[in-house]
Amino acid sequence: MLGNFIYYNPTKLYFGTEVDKNLKDALENYGKKVLLVYGGGSIKSNGIYDTVIKALKETGKEVVELSGVMPNPTLEKLNEGILLARNEDVDLILAVGGGSTIDYSKGVAAGAFFDGDAWTNFWLQQKEPAPDQKIIPVGSVLTLAGTGSEMNGGSVITDEKNKLKVGKVFGERLIPKFSVLNPEYTFSLPQNQMVAGIYDIMSHIMEQYFSGDDDSTSDYISEGLMRSLIASSRVAVKDPKNYEARSNIMWIATWALNTLIGKGKKQDWMVHMIAHTIGAFTHATHGMALSAISAAYYRFILKYGEHRFARFARVVWEIPSEGKTDSQLASEGIDALENWIKEIGAASDIEVLGVTDNMLEEIAATTFLGGGYKEITKEDIVAILKDSLKRNKNNL
Amino acid sequence: MLGNFIYYNPTKLYFGTEVDKNLKDALENYGKKVLLVYGGGSIKSNGIYDTVIKALKETGKEVVELSGVMPNPTLEKLNEGILLARNEDVDLILAVGGGSTIDYSKGVAAGAFFDGDAWTNFWLQQKEPAPDQKIIPVGSVLTLAGTGSEMNGGSVITDEKNKLKVGKVFGERLIPKFSVLNPEYTFSLPQNQMVAGIYDIMSHIMEQYFSGDDDSTSDYISEGLMRSLIASSRVAVKDPKNYEARSNIMWIATWALNTLIGKGKKQDWMVHMIAHTIGAFTHATHGMALSAISAAYYRFILKYGEHRFARFARVVWEIPSEGKTDSQLASEGIDALENWIKEIGAASDIEVLGVTDNMLEEIAATTFLGGGYKEITKEDIVAILKDSLKRNKNNL
Repeated sequence: MLGNFIYYNPTKLYFGTEVDKNLKDALENYGKKVLLVYGGGSIKSNGIYDTVIKALKETGKEVVELSGVMPNPTLEKLNEGILLARNEDVDLILAVGGGSTIDYSKGVAAGAFFDGDAWTNFWLQQKEPAPDQKIIPVGSVLTLAGTGSEMNGGSVITDEKNKLKVGKVFGERLIPKFSVLNPEYTFSLPQNQMVAGIYDIMSHIMEQYFSGDDDSTSDYISEGLMRSLIASSRVAVKDPKNYEARSNIMWIATWALNTLIGKGKKQDWMVHMIAHTIGAFTHATHGMALSAISAAYYRFILKYGEHRFARFARVVWEIPSEGKTDSQLASEGIDALENWIKEIGAASDIEVLGVTDNMLEEIAATTFLGGGYKEITKEDIVAILKDSLKRNKNNL
Repeated sequence: MLGNFIYYNPTKLYFGTEVDKNLKDALENYGKKVLLVYGGGSIKSNGIYDTVIKALKETGKEVVELSGVMPNPTLEKLNEGILLARNEDVDLILAVGGGSTIDYSKGVAAGAFFDGDAWTNFWLQQKEPAPDQKIIPVGSVLTLAGTGSEMNGGSVITDEKNKLKVGKVFGERLIPKFSVLNPEYTFSLPQNQMVAGIYDIMSHIMEQYFSGDDDSTSDYISEGLMRSLIASSRVAVKDPKNYEARSNIMWIATWALNTLIGKGKKQDWMVHMIAHTIGAFTHATHGMALSAISAAYYRFILKYGEHRFARFARVVWEIPSEGKTDSQLASEGIDALENWIKEIGAASDIEVLGVTDNMLEEIAATTFLGGGYKEITKEDIVAILKDSLKRNKNNL
């Protein structure tokens, strides 16, 4: 554990099937007026809405509803929520949904009592709300495992008009006060969304793991989480209602992005950066854009971090190391990752997402640059994108 | 992740060398009067006391001192602290030391404003303070890695007159509000205390790991923590001032016993139970009593949980599994554990602790019974103790 850091994650996690009991226990700590935030209405057909409303009623809450939060919450929708939360002066925002709904709720909580334009200040200038600004507490009922938003301060909002998708990590006051995690709530998700979520989780872990050469406990924890995710994903793709597998996946999602495994180490978020741009050009599902670009990206940086990639092969994939160089072993680890991507049914190349040759330069030009083992240039991104396109053609 | 559970661990952890800055940041959130709790005065010779006093002064605190907290805090000392904290009406208890000092401070915090006898109620009857009872917040500056008390609600108090050593896990209000973790503060610890701490950590993880046959993410995280602990212990015993190794050990200690790795699974704390009794008979250091009994205990229950012990060998010790039965592999895993105990200089048998043949029956008779893969009887304990004694004689 190198460097100095603070770990503070006061979200109370209620895990398991007793949603009614858990939700009532959590709601008791907050005032009367609750802003209930959700998405397109799938929670009405699967019964989750009724369960939540029952708990709200039985704890004497007055409910203001705000629905229609979209997969990539827009600035326009954010401003609608901010206005509503301020006018109604709610005591709690209860987000029922996946990462988008929770991200959005944090944005509303931060912006409702801000004297000025929240988008300009919080997202574009990456400022924090002032210490004396009122922040509405946020709680969540999670229906989709992947983003980890249930236990962190992250929020992503999209300005559609200006094609800007901006992520912001708020400080401790915006981390959800409680999150209710029922693995059964993820059972009804379509298979491709479950798989996209699984790959999103894997990517969160890998982007923190593939950086640095030091001996950090964080990396050992990451290895444990990846091993468990791979094992459970193999069960879940064949048997999506397997409680054990889905519960492990939900729990891993939370711990993959609540800051624990990134403590005291360098990180490299380039796969997410490239995937965000691909998403802007193709509207590909986030998790699928990540899986489509991962192998090409890691093959590209492999020689700069060979030792870590060899360790990944040996520990995470249990590939025998005897008589092999780090370079061989490292390469076999990426092969194993790529095979697993195909095995679970995630996208293994960018062509299936609709990326074509003539987009590559523009994707590279609009991607936010960074890196870990190697500082990535625009030329590097073009090479990585070409590799992903070519790989698919070779397979045909 | 089986079963329903709550995870809530709101301790703010300040990790690293910037103690002055971290402590002042933490102290700002509490009132003027601080009860400073510490042990025998080693913090005065190594400069930690001065650093803490400076931060207290610079944040304008009024300090009441309570020193002399012993390694196994006594009921008599507890009552002294309760009286002092109540009379002085302090706003914060700041524990500076290891697990005993922090455990003790939680006891004082819980008992100060309790209307009645805290020992009888909290420890002997395992009750919680009532929701409306005032609890003094506790913060800590950690000087010894091992018990995990810096991020949990645990407290162990000893009634010397009646030879009762009782552990209590308090609820969320008694978990330290903040803990300042500086790995350098553990550098000056004598080697045998460092080693005892390392084994205490290993035992905390194993006692949660060796139980259950399900596929739980908790066990994968445990494997990561054990692998990291073993790697760092090998560096630290040769080079105790290696910051990286000592920082990993300190971080692992916190996460080994803050409830994370026990979530959703069965646990087996018999090694701690037997070691507690051995401690009462011999005054052996806690970590050494654990190491002395571990191998004998795990060999005894091995056939009841072969599959898990084989996994332990394969994943934690990287023992090649090809062509081996679970039984062979499991046995080799315990051999590896035993070799590591000797390698780091922990006690590998109970004879070196002063246990003799004529004590065995009485140790067995006074040990609290439980178990995991096997429900343990008094006869079982005698057999385990005999194995540990015999093992040593064979080695001579």
